[in-house]
Parts: sequence; C-alpha cells; structure tokens
Amino acid sequence: MSSMYGENLRLSVFGQSHAPAIGMTLDGIPAGLPVDMAALQAFLARRAPGQNGFSTTRKEADTPEFLCGISDGFTCGAPVTAIIRNTNTRSGDYDNLRDCPRPGHADYTAQIKYGGYQDAAGGGHFSGRLTAPICIAGGLCIQWLAQKGIRVGAHIASIAGISDMPFDMTDPQIDAVGKEFPVLDTEAGEAMGNAILEAKSAGDSVGGVIECAVTGLPAGLGNPMFDGVENRIAGIVFGIPAVKGLEFGLGFGLSAMRGSLSNDPFIMSNGEVRTATNNCGGILGGITDGMPLIFRAAVKPTPSIATCQRSVSLSQKAEQELIVKGRHDPCIVPRAVPVIEAAAAIAVMDMILG
Amino acid sequence: MSSMYGENLRLSVFGQSHAPAIGMTLDGIPAGLPVDMAALQAFLARRAPGQNGFSTTRKEADTPEFLCGISDGFTCGAPVTAIIRNTNTRSGDYDNLRDCPRPGHADYTAQIKYGGYQDAAGGGHFSGRLTAPICIAGGLCIQWLAQKGIRVGAHIASIAGISDMPFDMTDPQIDAVGKEFPVLDTEAGEAMGNAILEAKSAGDSVGGVIECAVTGLPAGLGNPMFDGVENRIAGIVFGIPAVKGLEFGLGFGLSAMRGSLSNDPFIMSNGEVRTATNNCGGILGGITDGMPLIFRAAVKPTPSIATCQRSVSLSQKAEQELIVKGRHDPCIVPRAVPVIEAAAAIAVMDMILG
Amino acid sequence: MSSMYGENLRLSVFGQSHAPAIGMTLDGIPAGLPVDMAALQAFLARRAPGQNGFSTTRKEADTPEFLCGISDGFTCGAPVTAIIRNTNTRSGDYDNLRDCPRPGHADYTAQIKYGGYQDAAGGGHFSGRLTAPICIAGGLCIQWLAQKGIRVGAHIASIAGISDMPFDMTDPQIDAVGKEFPVLDTEAGEAMGNAILEAKSAGDSVGGVIECAVTGLPAGLGNPMFDGVENRIAGIVFGIPAVKGLEFGLGFGLSAMRGSLSNDPFIMSNGEVRTATNNCGGILGGITDGMPLIFRAAVKPTPSIATCQRSVSLSQKAEQELIVKGRHDPCIVPRAVPVIEAAAAIAVMDMILG
Amino acid sequence: MSSMYGENLRLSVFGQSHAPAIGMTLDGIPAGLPVDMAALQAFLARRAPGQNGFSTTRKEADTPEFLCGISDGFTCGAPVTAIIRNTNTRSGDYDNLRDCPRPGHADYTAQIKYGGYQDAAGGGHFSGRLTAPICIAGGLCIQWLAQKGIRVGAHIASIAGISDMPFDMTDPQIDAVGKEFPVLDTEAGEAMGNAILEAKSAGDSVGGVIECAVTGLPAGLGNPMFDGVENRIAGIVFGIPAVKGLEFGLGFGLSAMRGSLSNDPFIMSNGEVRTATNNCGGILGGITDGMPLIFRAAVKPTPSIATCQRSVSLSQKAEQELIVKGRHDPCIVPRAVPVIEAAAAIAVMDMILG
Repeated sequence: MSSMYGENLRLSVFGQSHAPAIGMTLDGIPAGLPVDMAALQAFLARRAPGQNGFSTTRKEADTPEFLCGISDGFTCGAPVTAIIRNTNTRSGDYDNLRDCPRPGHADYTAQIKYGGYQDAAGGGHFSGRLTAPICIAGGLCIQWLAQKGIRVGAHIASIAGISDMPFDMTDPQIDAVGKEFPVLDTEAGEAMGNAILEAKSAGDSVGGVIECAVTGLPAGLGNPMFDGVENRIAGIVFGIPAVKGLEFGLGFGLSAMRGSLSNDPFIMSNGEVRTATNNCGGILGGITDGMPLIFRAAVKPTPSIATCQRSVSLSQKAEQELIVKGRHDPCIVPRAVPVIEAAAAIAVMDMILG
Repeated sequence: MSSMYGENLRLSVFGQSHAPAIGMTLDGIPAGLPVDMAALQAFLARRAPGQNGFSTTRKEADTPEFLCGISDGFTCGAPVTAIIRNTNTRSGDYDNLRDCPRPGHADYTAQIKYGGYQDAAGGGHFSGRLTAPICIAGGLCIQWLAQKGIRVGAHIASIAGISDMPFDMTDPQIDAVGKEFPVLDTEAGEAMGNAILEAKSAGDSVGGVIECAVTGLPAGLGNPMFDGVENRIAGIVFGIPAVKGLEFGLGFGLSAMRGSLSNDPFIMSNGEVRTATNNCGGILGGITDGMPLIFRAAVKPTPSIATCQRSVSLSQKAEQELIVKGRHDPCIVPRAVPVIEAAAAIAVMDMILG
Repeated sequence: MSSMYGENLRLSVFGQSHAPAIGMTLDGIPAGLPVDMAALQAFLARRAPGQNGFSTTRKEADTPEFLCGISDGFTCGAPVTAIIRNTNTRSGDYDNLRDCPRPGHADYTAQIKYGGYQDAAGGGHFSGRLTAPICIAGGLCIQWLAQKGIRVGAHIASIAGISDMPFDMTDPQIDAVGKEFPVLDTEAGEAMGNAILEAKSAGDSVGGVIECAVTGLPAGLGNPMFDGVENRIAGIVFGIPAVKGLEFGLGFGLSAMRGSLSNDPFIMSNGEVRTATNNCGGILGGITDGMPLIFRAAVKPTPSIATCQRSVSLSQKAEQELIVKGRHDPCIVPRAVPVIEAAAAIAVMDMILG
Repeated sequence: MSSMYGENLRLSVFGQSHAPAIGMTLDGIPAGLPVDMAALQAFLARRAPGQNGFSTTRKEADTPEFLCGISDGFTCGAPVTAIIRNTNTRSGDYDNLRDCPRPGHADYTAQIKYGGYQDAAGGGHFSGRLTAPICIAGGLCIQWLAQKGIRVGAHIASIAGISDMPFDMTDPQIDAVGKEFPVLDTEAGEAMGNAILEAKSAGDSVGGVIECAVTGLPAGLGNPMFDGVENRIAGIVFGIPAVKGLEFGLGFGLSAMRGSLSNDPFIMSNGEVRTATNNCGGILGGITDGMPLIFRAAVKPTPSIATCQRSVSLSQKAEQELIVKGRHDPCIVPRAVPVIEAAAAIAVMDMILG
C-alpha cells in the first residue's frame, strides 16, 4: 500500500496538503512508553516551515492532536493516531495544475494515475507537508529507542555542492546537529546559507545531501537478502519526497576503491568485536555489525521555482509556459533533516520489534 | 521475510552456496506465458562464472530444473519453482570462517544472528551464488515484459572509476549490452578489464557502478510515498550482495544542481507528453512518467581478496590475521549486470500486476 | 499488524472506546468514486446503539468526520481517513477492570499483553465500538461495489436458537434486510425479540448467527490455498468482536453429508455456467464460481451481563465476585449485521482490486 | 500471494499433483533447531495415502528431500526447502477435466482464472496432495514448539455425523490421537469406518469434523482485531482443501447460549489465573488466555465420487454427464488430521516469533 510502511511497527500516513487534516497512525508501538510531548513538539519544530529565510514563509503550527493510543501519558498498546489540522491554505494558487503540470512535481503522474480526481491543491497527498506525520511517528520512535541507548542524528552533508565537515557520530556531535540548520562546520553552514539565498533571489532552488547515523545498535539486527537493513531503510527513505539517491557507508565511493581498502578490518576494542573503519556503514550481509549505521540521502532541488518553465497543456496537447505561484522553500534540505531522522528511527524500531 | 520479495508477484529465494541445491519460487506469475528455455539459459549464462579471466575459475552449469508451475511449455498459474544443484563445492576452504570472520563478508553478522548454526561454507545463504535464482525469476519476468513491449537493459557504468559512455537506452544499445562484458565503449571496456587484471595480480579486487534502464513503461505505474517505484526497486536491488548505493535519474548529481536545471521540462513529442530531459529517471512522486526508468547501483569491491587481512578470533577474543582461500572474482560487476536486470524486471512486473 | 487488514485495499482501524476519537484510514480506494454521504450515514445508523430495547441506551451520533481522501465529493486516490469523536463516555464504570477482569472480555488478556498500560475504559481498543470505523470503510466499499453490480446483504439467521427463514439472496430480499432488525420472517423476528428481552430482564444476554451473501460477483475471484476467498473473508470477519465461528455455504452441515449430495452439479442457465445448488457458498478451490458468495458467522452472547460472575483479583491472586456495571446490549447480533456486511464488502473489494 | 502464508515464519507451498515435484520453503525458522528426521517421517506417514481401505490405493512414498536450510542436522537460519518427487501419476485419467469440470472441485474456477492454461492433471495446484508440503513445514514447527512445552493434537470429532468422545486435551489423549485413524472412542471409530466403507461401496464419499488443540501456550499471544489468533488460524486452515467451516471453543454452539453460561469464569488454579470452562477456546479478544487453544474444522465429503454426476461441456456450452475416473479417498478426514495439526503448528509458531 502506498502510504503504509513497516512490518511489526506499521505506519500509516494520510492527508493532503489542503485537506481538513493530515496525520498518521502508528500501529504496533509497544505499551508503556511514556510520551514526552514537549520533546516531540521540539522535534517537530525542526521540520516546521517559516523559521528563517531559507524556507517558505507559510506559518504552520504543526501541533499534533493525539486521538488515541496514549492513555495517562503512556502508549497503551492500541494504535496511536495523531492529526494536524490544515489551516493556512491558499487553494487558489494551484487551480491550473491539473491541466498544466509543474516540472519536477507529481502533478502529471497524479493526473495519469487518478484520472483527474487527484486533489491537486498544494500537491495533495504528494506534498512535502506529509512529512510532518512521518516526524510525529519518528519522534515517538526516537523516544522509544532512546530508552534502549540508541540515538539517531543527521546533518546536512552538503547543499549546492558545499560540504559540511565529517560526522563522527559521537554523542556531542549528535547533540550538536539537533538544531534548525544542522551543520557541524559553521563556516560551511554560512556558505550553504548564502548559496540558498542566491538561488532564492534568482527565483531558483538548490538541493543537497543528508547524512544520518544511528548509534548504539546491537549487532545482529536485520536479515539477509530482501529484508536487510539497507532494504528496510530504503523502503521508507525513498518515501520522502525529493529523495533520489541513497547510499550506505561509503556507498558510491566504494565503487572506485579496491577491496583491500574498502574492507573494514575486524579488531578487538574493549573486549568487543568492532571494525577499524566503517566503510560498510555498519551493515554486512544486510545485518548490523555493531558499528554505527550510516547512510546518506540525495535530495533534489525544490522543483517549485519562481522562474518561467516549459510545460504542456494536457487538455490542449500543446506546449505552454508555466509560472509556479505560491510560497516555496528555496531549499528543503534543512527541514528534511529531521524527516530523515524520523524515517531512520521508524525503520530501526520496526527491525528491533521484528 | 528475509528471502522473499514482492506483493503481487512473490519471489522466494532459497539455498546456500554448498547446500544440495539453490533455487527460487515465483508465485503469482500469470498463466499462459510461453517459456523460452533457450533464451532463459542464455540469460543465465551471462551471470555464470568461469567465462573469462575476470571471474572465478569455478565452473557452474547453472542449468535450472523446473519442478512445477510450467505445463506444456506455458506457465500454468501455479507457483513456478526451479532449482540448481550445487555440484562443484569445496567446503574445506571455509572451515575456519566461523571463528575468524572475513572482512567485508557476512561471516561475523551471521555468527551473531544465528549463534554459530549458520552454514558458513561458501558464505551460505549470503553467497553471491544466490543471485542465480534471482536471474531465473528475472529471466521469466523479462520474457513476460517483452510481450508488453517493455525492455530491460543494463551496462557497466564504471569499474574502478573508469566510466563507460552514456547509455541512451535505445533498442540498439539495449541489444548491445546483452553480453558477457556489457559496455558500450570498447576502449573503456578494455581499460576496465586491465584494471580488473591489475587488481587480480595484486591479490586485490575492484568495484563499480551498474546502470539499468527499463523502457516502454506506461505512465502511471507506482504509488506515492512508501510504495513508489524507487522504494520497490530499492527493496530488491539492495537484496543483491555488495550493492551499497542506489540512485534514480541523476541521483546524487541532483544534489549539487539548481532546480531550473534539474527539473525536466514537459514537452509534446508525437502527440505524447514527454520530458525534454530525464533527470528524474522516469519517476515523479513515485510514479512513472512514461520516460525510461533509470537507476544506478554501486557495487563494492569483492570482499574476498587474496592478501592477508586483519580479523579476529571470536573464540579467543583476540586479533588474528586471515588469508582467505578459495577462488573468487576479482570484480563481480560484469556478472552482476544481468542480476540487476533481473531485479528490475521482477520489481517492474510486480508493479504492473499490482 | 493487529488493526490493519487488506492487501490492495488497506484498512487501518484506530481508537479506543473512551479515547478522544475512533476512526479508520482506507488506503488504496480508487480515485473517482462519488461518495454518497447520506447513504453512508444511513448505513452507519443500522449499527448505532440506542435505537430500541434490544441495545444499550447509550446514544452515539456516530457521524464521521472525513479528514482527507475525498475532494469535491469524489475519492481522490489518497488514503481516506474519517474519525468519530467519542462524547458520551462514563469512564468511572470501568475503574476496577484492570484488577478484576470481566469473564468473556479481553480485560485479562490485554492486561497480560500490555502489562497494565492498556486503556481499560470501555474495553479500550477491544470495544465493539471499534466496529463503527469498519462500517465507515465498508459503507464506502459497498458504494464502490454497487457501481459494478455487486450487492452485499445479511440477515439474522438465528438468535438464541430461533431461526429466520432461508435467505434466497434475490434483490428483493437483500432490499428487505437493510433495516434495523434484519429478518425476513416477521414472526421469527418477534420470537427473537422476545428472547432478547427475556434475557435482558434476567440480567443475561443471547447470541446468534448472521448470514451474509454477496451477489453479482464474477467467477474467477480469489486464489488457491492461503489466499482464497474463505481465507480473506475469515481474516476480517474474525476481527469483529464476539465472532467465534465462520462457515461457507453449508459449512459444518457438509460434514454430515455424502458427496453425491454436497457436490453442486454444474448446469447451463441462460447460456451461463451455474450450479444447480450452492452448497459450496460460491467458492471452489478458494475461487468464486459465479454463484452468490455465502457465509455465516457465529456471534457469542454479549459477555457483559448484569448478573454476578466469578472472577479473580489479579493483584491479590484470589477469586472474587464481579458485577459488571455500565449499559450493555443484551444481544449485539442485530447491530453486528451491518458490520458483517461491511467486512464482506471490504474483503471482496480488496480481492477485486488484487 | 496464493500459496504463501505467515508473517515472521513464512511458508511457501509449490507444486502440482502431477508436476515433477511438490514442495515447500519455510523462511524464518530460527537457527539451531535439531531436526528429527525419523519423527518428521512418522508424522508425514499419518497423511500418506494407501494405508487402509479408507483412502486411495495410490502409493506415495512422501519422503521429502531437503535441499537447503539444514546444516549438520540443525536448521541454519536460511530458508528450509524440501521437495517430494511425484512418481505415481496417471495423467490420462484427467484428460477431459478442462472441458467438463468435476462438481465440487476447482476445475471450473481454475479454467476461468487461468484461461485454460492450468495444469488440470490430478487437480494441479489445487490437489489435496499439496497438503504434504504443509505437513513437512508443520512437522518442523511441531518439533520447535515441543522444545517450548507446546503440544498440538487433533482427532476426528465426527465422520458422517458419528461423533468421537470429547477431547480433554491432556497429554495422554494427545499421545493417543497421534495415529492413523485418530479417534479416542474405539466404538465410534468403528462406526465411522463402517460409514466410510458404506459410502465407498455406494461410489460415494463422506465428510467430517476435525478438532484440534494446542496446549502449553502462554497467555498474551496474538493481537486484537485483524491479527488475532482466530484470524491467523483461519488464514492457514482455510487453505486446506475441503475445509468449509471453522469455529473456536464452542463456536456455533455459543450462538444459542446465554452469556451467563457461555462466559468462562476466571478462577485461581495452583496460583495461576485460569478459566473454569473453556468455551472461548483459549482466546479472548484475539489473544490467548493461557488455556488450551481449541478449534474445529468442517471437512466436506470428497468431491471425487464414482457415481455419475451432472456437469457441463464448457466448449459446447451444454449440460453433460460425468464419470470421474481415478482412485480417490471415500473420506479424507483421517488423512486431514495431521494436516490440521501442521497448520495449527505453523500458525502458532508464526505468532510466537512475531
């Protein structure tokens, strides 16, 4: 099913950008988790728009209303459902998208798939707004994982080709990246910010890469072949709009290396088996090896740009120019960082429960 | 489940490298497909080892025996099961792997997960040999897709950092890459071959990138969010041993672009809606847009290398050097090309049946 | 997952009896279905309590609020989510159930499974109230099926051992049973009503059997073995609280027959292949044969009765008497009839979409 | 998928009655189970035909060949695949079934579903012969469950309306029913046998009911709603050919009772919470309560009978008489008993692993 994910922990995401509400159901979350609503709200705030010059000026409270699954402050074993009401909508901006699809968006493919019945306003169910429910679910999972000593942290690895410093995945670094513009190297962050603003002033947009680590995982999680850690992570990460690439450990970088360098030597460290390097991203044969799980996701530039673009009129079967209206992020990468963390947390918790 | 894939077309892969047999069951394949066994065997031959100096010298016939699901030469609607007997095994080569895991292999993670009961010989269920059953299944799917005008073709995009020419995904190019060493640029192919042989003579190995295209797909295939084309392709491609990265269209390349360049403009072409470029790899919002589906998979260098490596003795909890015995491919990329094609075909057929 | 059902049409049910809301998400419903809200509300009214002396006197509006998935009156291809707010709750009635479980209810098993964190009020997620979301989903499916000439109808086959007349599954009979107390034989219905009232006045309850038919189905729906029509129907019908038995066609009655009588002879009828009888309930080998699909579900007596019962104190590990408070249906069979119809519709539509 | 079952333990059944082989893959079985092949063979022998006058005179060795998943006598964590070669086939007996379908069989529905490409010989994939692979899988699960103190036992509750004595599910009774004609009451067994022979001599067949118990289960297994114990058991039991009804505890009998009698009072027994009766079959709210799990399955009479039956010629669209050739069981109930045990074991083990 398109908007459901997971085997033992099952996420269902629902809503359209301009429907009465968006939301999520998380089925299978164990009973007894004390839910820290303030921490959850702080996590969601990292994804919310309107915080700085890099994102859309739309203001969205993004405060979830929990309808069920939490009783007296603890998960009760029943499915948890939370919704966010959509309030600040401007449907008029999207009137013509059914006929003249925006390049880089799902307008055209939705038109084909749903025969014109899709909710085109704001991208409908394809909107980046649907990542808010993913963050609600992921925020709960992060709290559950924390109880087991498992942490999830992500940073902006690059924006517009400008790279952050390496992420060493220690607790201080993970603490450091839990912020609005999650980079480790302040100067690089400023350069990224400038690149975003330049693109914005040019009516354009930029993309980037997000790097995520999960630490504290036991060895032995995952399965061979089609149920490996990579497959599970990919199954949710490619569900985040604009993600077009995913690599584990050194990923594509491994393709140009020799085995003598890419292989991670086993060592003993404080009586534990570890690897001297972690080029494989903590996964061998689809199964965790006790080192941090590391992956990187490529995020394409925001397709909604202010400049005139080539498109077609579907009704007239003719080419036509298009000016996309509305308020859009010139770069969604910063706001996508907590979404990637949420996705990782959901996938990892699902595997642990398996 | 670890070794099953698919929703409407369900693949089950079974076997270990040195068990009596390996094989696969393909459940859900529609009745009435005439099976061209010669074409299937030719497809399997592209994956089989021992063909040239780039691969292991083990000889494996890899001739499947079909146990059921085919009646009078046609699929009959029942699950199709085929097996390949393992004959040329040398179990003695792997005796010490339970205690001293090979770097880059699943020996250690299997030991943790299966508590010492894993079949360590030849990598057991984690062996690259298990890609033969994937090719049996994929070979059948390719025949089914061909009836609908859908073609699958892949080439070696790079080995050891040496790149092939761009793949334009026309029928002649797809015809051209259906061979043992599938490159378009002969000179680049020779350079790749030399890089492989150099690594081999150094007791080392190299990796590469495989690029795959599926042409003839209708627009509208796939789903939003977690059931998109990317998620489905990823779910099977990350099941192929040694794949550590996956990107669609320009993938990671998109992360450094601006939206005005990365967006694919819509155009009219012979009365059909098309895009002028195909940076998105034929997928918008998880749904095909009628352009060729394009993806690239990063393959790490063969972890089995002849040089001495650092490892540990699990029983003695001490570091220990390891020399991996056995015959191994200095580069598995050429043999992995048909596996990638098979995986793509299985995923696409599953989506079409959905 | 516990509260999700379906393969191609995926239902997620959420909520607890006394949580802020209950609801459902239906993912995979095709775009373009015009939703008749009045017809849906009328269908839900058949399940709503407080209509007559046979059910609890609690009044519940059971008016769903649709949060998403419907745009301009049509399904838009995105998941449909609807919720019902819980307003008329009396949590105080259930304070002691965590320690002293009600016989016949899930209080004890929930206590074991959720370690005391379950929401015990009103039965929590196990409450019969959760059948309202099933009816929302089923009501939508019934409308979709009606467009294809497929009808779903159920009647009370028996209550307290008193049987209705045979259900011939013609359109007039299906029309006739779409009512609050769905019997065909008025006299039998009166006798059933008396049996319910007698039980009620004795502080007791009664059970019954519901018979359901689906007409207009094409032959060829379903699959062999574990994905047959029976399996699919069972997967959802056993999710309805209090259902403890399920049979297709003559079901258990077949076990005492001879094959020469139980086999349904094939005949030609108006140029179509039909069977002279329909002892198999329209299913052969898990696949529909073009005759009406028929099944019967056994519903146990309402476990909440007013008389004193034997139970235990879990904290004191001692036997203890229990008086169940609250308002309860002396017989839930009439209200369960539309739930069975809803379940059948969901299962059948899922199979058609498969 | 039609021939796959399970979530955490996944069974795939393949083969047709007259294909080269039938078999099964069991994916997800934990590593380290010592497989007692003699015990497994003895279990399979209970299902094998040709043992007495009640079953077909075909002789089938039904000795599985294990292809993988077992290493040095222990499960190794990889999928277990076993096959049984089909040797004693008489395809000629079934030549006309494609045109003139046997009443009570899947010939007609298979013809519709597979468009004439189905393997009609011996019922193809719909054959009762496919229960042999279920028994291989179930036999392994029974051995795994036994290690945890969980036992599975079933007896013939009735044949042709003649009932066995009540099954008290103690170890001696479970021991007693592990035999070729599993009844507790010898006289009833003789009467059943006579009923079978009478039907046989009349060219007819009889059905029956099988009752199964699983003892030693912990409380807390299963889930609410659609993932309850009943749903899981139903999902596999309705995959056994000829099963047309299923009930838990008193099942349909509950429908005529009052709540004061049907409710199982909680009691303390040796410091444990138990119920005084077990009318609910050990399941409350879809979750086990620590009492034996009890269910009964209705088995229809063998549809293959020797007497002339009414059928149709599909090609001529005309009614036609049919004499079914071949050797058939006049009653499959005795041979279905181990199949029901196998199904119960698979379902229960899958739930325990969940």
